[in-house]
Order: sequence, then structure tokens, then C-alpha cells
Amino acid sequence: MPITNDLTALLGIRHPLMLAPMDTISGSRLTRAVGEAGGFGILGGGYGDRARLEAETAKLKDFAGPFGVGFITWSLAKKPELLDIALKANPRAIMLSFGDPKPFAPRIKSSGALLICQVQDEAMARQALEAGADVLIAQGTEAGGHGASRTTIDIVPAIVDLAAGRVPVVAAGGLADGRGLAAMLMLGASGVLMGTRFYASIEADGADEAKRLICAANSGETVRGVVFDWSRKLLWPAPFTARSLINAHVRTWTGREIELMQRADQVAVDYAAAKAAGNFDVAAVFAGESAGLIHDIPPAAEIVDRIVTEADQILSGKRNSSAA
Amino acid sequence: MPITNDLTALLGIRHPLMLAPMDTISGSRLTRAVGEAGGFGILGGGYGDRARLEAETAKLKDFAGPFGVGFITWSLAKKPELLDIALKANPRAIMLSFGDPKPFAPRIKSSGALLICQVQDEAMARQALEAGADVLIAQGTEAGGHGASRTTIDIVPAIVDLAAGRVPVVAAGGLADGRGLAAMLMLGASGVLMGTRFYASIEADGADEAKRLICAANSGETVRGVVFDWSRKLLWPAPFTARSLINAHVRTWTGREIELMQRADQVAVDYAAAKAAGNFDVAAVFAGESAGLIHDIPPAAEIVDRIVTEADQILSGKRNSSAA
Ligand SMILES: Cc1cc2nc3c(=O)[nH]c(=O)nc-3n(C[C@H](O)[C@H](O)[C@H](O)COP(=O)(O)O)c2cc1C
Ligand SMILES: Cc1cc2nc3c(=O)[nH]c(=O)nc-3n(C[C@H](O)[C@H](O)[C@H](O)COP(=O)(O)O)c2cc1C
Repeated sequence: MPITNDLTALLGIRHPLMLAPMDTISGSRLTRAVGEAGGFGILGGGYGDRARLEAETAKLKDFAGPFGVGFITWSLAKKPELLDIALKANPRAIMLSFGDPKPFAPRIKSSGALLICQVQDEAMARQALEAGADVLIAQGTEAGGHGASRTTIDIVPAIVDLAAGRVPVVAAGGLADGRGLAAMLMLGASGVLMGTRFYASIEADGADEAKRLICAANSGETVRGVVFDWSRKLLWPAPFTARSLINAHVRTWTGREIELMQRADQVAVDYAAAKAAGNFDVAAVFAGESAGLIHDIPPAAEIVDRIVTEADQILSGKRNSSAA
Repeated sequence: MPITNDLTALLGIRHPLMLAPMDTISGSRLTRAVGEAGGFGILGGGYGDRARLEAETAKLKDFAGPFGVGFITWSLAKKPELLDIALKANPRAIMLSFGDPKPFAPRIKSSGALLICQVQDEAMARQALEAGADVLIAQGTEAGGHGASRTTIDIVPAIVDLAAGRVPVVAAGGLADGRGLAAMLMLGASGVLMGTRFYASIEADGADEAKRLICAANSGETVRGVVFDWSRKLLWPAPFTARSLINAHVRTWTGREIELMQRADQVAVDYAAAKAAGNFDVAAVFAGESAGLIHDIPPAAEIVDRIVTEADQILSGKRNSSAA
């Protein structure tokens, strides 16, 4: 029995499961695969590579289902014209994360697209609602990639209470299976958004070695910090830091961030070289705590199917099996 | 419809809801109140005050229902005779947290009591299972009081998978309402253990002002660290730190822990004086992230009732309301 609610109705999808717009990992191929499986795919707008965005949105032209395009808000502010490229592709929604959505909201909403905002605390949620957000993603610190410090079990009910039914709230961070989807529905969320789980899929635009490292990582083997951003001279605004797998590079520099900043020029050269060479002892694999739950690299459709099937079984059965 | 399962059967309780053995906050009065309401009360053994333990266990003599006594394992190791005092009260279970339970397990189990172990990672869970634990409490970093760094949404499924059905797993940390109970059941836990929620109850042996401060705190206004332990010269073994409400004292010293250690003698004198005076600008209120969900100080029975009623409603209704 499908789980349908305010979120699935609003986005026009079959399952309350969304693909996170992971910078260059969530390309058109993964976005389409998740959408075809009945979830909501969101193409990553990344840090504003215009040519890539044009090419990837073009590949979605003949995709009939709904999809979204996601931007890092403070990065989009530097190249606002990218929003027009995204809107030209007729997305069902634009997702904005990490910054005030207000400057972009009118253009998005007047185009007919929905506005999805990812938030990390109550102040950001209020800002998003004032800007006219149609969906809030409540992201916990467990999330892969950039985020902040509040945990999923804390932030999800807090944002659900704040939204008070005005817009659907979607949970993100540390979720990779049907148990997580079912649990978040109990907290009052209308669905989940997953990144790391879809990174380890056939269609993700990531290195095979990165996908294998996600499968190999145990729970508790990721870390949130600034080492990788500073190693590529990418200075994110506070309070955002990035969660990645723990490798030799992050082990070396965690706790020595001031020295890292002082030696930034040399580190950046070495880091770029290692990254180009695909050396993941140095280069980051951005991934969340949910890596511990991930052990294979299936097609995205199989991931969607497994998660909704497991959630459905838990939701249907648990009440009975645990009842007297 | 009551939620009953392996945990409620094992402990002989009506609801899968446990009171955490909060040092001197969970006294006989709160333990009994939770038990009478159908949950499982656990008396806090604290840091080994023999006279208090004798007095509090004596007050439970005429309580017919099952209850537990909890110890801080590394502290109990200094006064192992306290275990005999606890066992003389015929508890259904002894709960051990923060240290290897093995030295105490034989005495507990041969007395006929169950062994409950609170764990913060997989290695501790394995150690507890080897010692013969009958129940595992998987504690996330959101928890009030002492704990470690893994989050509830991460550690609960990890320990459920590790236990593989051999013993019930109970979730702790950041949970204060029926949503939290329902969500944890979805993750595969058999119940929840709550501390902070019961701190803000009539029967808790805490200062009224501390209870009021828990009600006033918003989500995100607690911090985990070593400041309060070092301020009272209580050196906990790694990896354990304590979560408390944020007050002036912890704001002053967070990030300046080395200086705090250097000035420990003077700080300890000032801290003890402030604590004796009930000055909570300085003295700690140990409490978890769930403080944001807590807004009143009802009798413990009302807390139990609200939580199980809300969980039952969510578990019965959600499947239908969210189904097509
Ligand atoms: C590799 C990677 C890249 C990410 N890049 C972005 C991004 O560009 N924009 C964004 O809004 N979120 C980004 N995120 C965060 C996701 O939106 C989402 O919050 C996160 O993946 C959820 O946690 P999970 O990874 O545990 O599923 C990224 C996450 C990962 C794992
Ligand atoms: C004031 C306070 C004191 C605590 N003291 C103890 C203790 O002595 N022994 C113990 O095992 N756990 C102790 N804990 C931790 C609890 O066992 C439990 O993990 C925690 O309360 C769960 O998180 P919550 O506070 O969000 O409900 C304490 C918690 C609080 C809030």
C-alpha cells in the first residue's frame, strides 16, 4: 500500500522519498532514475558551473515526470543567472540550501515552480516560511556534505512544530533505509530526503572508489568539520561545516585547523593534485553517518523500492506485532 | 491498545517506557511513580552515597511492582559493596552505564536480577552482550547527563542490528514524547528510556528552579562537554562527557578548558559554593536536547500516560491517514 500524503500530492510523486541535490554527484541520470522509480529527484546545481547545468538540464528535457533543481544559496547569489537556466527546464521545484532564500523566491514562485528550502534551525525555518517556502527540509547534523550541529531527532520535531501543518516537513540526515522513513513519519515528517544512500548507486556521478569507500565505512566513521573546505580554499559561511568519511587527510588536519589555514596555499595545491589523481586518502568523500547502513551499489530504482517496501512493511506490521 | 513486546514481557511492565537512573534526581519517589504508572522506574545509584542508597531502597520495600537500580559502573567499581545493598531490595534489574559490566555481571545474574547495560557504541554493546546483558540501552549524544558522541538516529539502528533479536534494545537520548516512542519502535527498538522528561516532574528529587529552567530552555540550548565535571574535580573516563543546559558558567569556560584545569582549585571552591546556594547561573542543570520539547512539570504518571497515549494514537492512525 503506497504511503501518500501532502508531500506526494504537492510534488506529484508516488513515494515520499527525495534525492538530495548533491553538488555534482546528483546529475541528470540519477535525478531521472529516482523520478522514474516514483521518488523526487533533485539535480545538483553545485557551485555554479554553467556549462554543466545547461548540459544536465538539457538531458532532462524529455523526462516527463516531476523533478527539482537544487542550489547552494550563497553560491547562487554570485551567479544568479543560473536560476534562469534551471527554470527554463520546467522543474517542479527549486531547492535552496545554505543562505537566505528571499532574493530568489519571487522569481521561482512566479515561474510556477515550488520553493523547497533546507534548514538547520528554527531561525532559518522562519526565514524560509517568510520567503514563501512550500516545503521545508529539516536537516540534522548526521547528514553528508554541508550542514550544521543540531541532530535529526532534535531538529525534525522542532521544525514540524514550527511549521504547524502549513507546509510539509521532510527529514534529512542519517537516513538510508525503510526504518528511517517510517521513523520520520512518526515524528510528523511527510517524507525523507537522502543523499549518501543514493551516492552509492549505479547512476550517481561519483567515482567508483568513492562509492566503494561509502560501502566499506562503518557507522561512526564520518566527521563534520572545515578541513576539506579549507583544503580547497572554499570558505563556507558559518554555521555550515561538511561531513565526510574519515581519511588520512582529515585525520592529519583535524584539530590543527589554524596551521592548515596558515599553510593553505601549499595544502591547496597538494589537495587539488590528489583529487585529480583520485587519491581518496587525501580527497574528500562527502558522506553522512548513514554510511554505516549502506553496503552495496544498486540501481537507484532498487534503492527506492527497498526503502518504500521496508517502510510499508514496518508501518503495516509493527502495530500488530507489538500489540498485546 | 497497549504497546507490549519482548521488553514489557521481560520487565513485567505495561508500557515500554523506562525512567533513566539520574544520579540523585531519580529517587525512590520518582522510581515508584513511574512504576505505578506502568513504566519501569530505575532508582539512581549516583556516585555511591551509601546512606542515601540504603534510605532510598528501603522506601521501595513496600512497592509491589518491578523496578531497577542504576549504577555508574566506574564509580561502583570503587564501592562494589553498594551492589549488595541494591540487590537486597530485590530489584527486577540492575542497570550499569559507563564502564565494563563484566566484573559485576555474575553477582547480578546469580541474584536473579536482570542486567541492563547502557551503551554508546558497538564495542560497548559487544562487551555488554558478552557479560550477559539482558537489555541494551542505545544512548545517543542528545541525552542529558553523561554520554558520548554518536547520535540517536545513528546508534539505535546500529545496536538493533548488532543485537539481532537476541536481547531487546531500548533507545535513549533526545526523546520526550509519544512521537519519539513511536519513531524508535519503527527503528527496531523495543522501547525508550527517558531522563530529562522525568526530571521536569513533580516527583523528581531536583530543585524547583532546575525544573523550571528545563521547561524554559529551547531546543538547541544544551551543550555537551567537560566544563561542569572539571569544575567539581570529577574526572570522567573518556569518551564520556556531560550534556547540560547552557548557563553563564559553561559559556565562560567552553573553549578554555585548559585554563579551567589550571585554575581547578579555585574554580572548584567557587563552584561548590554556587551549587550549595542553588545558583544555576553557575551550577549545572544536566539535561538533554529534549528540553526543547518539555514545557511543564506534571506528575510522573501524567507524563507516562501522555507519552503512551500519543504513541498509540500515532501508531494506530498514521498508517491510515497517510495511506492513499
Ligand atoms: C556528496 C554530498 C553532496 C552534497 N551536496 C549538497 C548540495 O550541493 N546542496 C545541498 O543542498 N545539499 C547537499 N548535500 C546535503 C544533502 O542535501 C542532504 O542534506 C544530505 O545528503 C542528507 O543526509 P544523508 O547524506 O545522510 O542522506 C550533499 C550531501 C552529500 C552526501
Ligand atoms: C540529570 C541527569 C542525570 C543522569 N545521571 C545518570 C546516571 O547517574 N547514570 C546513568 O546511567 N545515566 C544517567 N543519565 C543519562 C540517562 O541514563 C539517559 O541516557 C538520558 O537521560 C537520556 O536522554 P534524555 O535526557 O534526553 O531523556 C542522566 C541524565 C540526566 C538528565
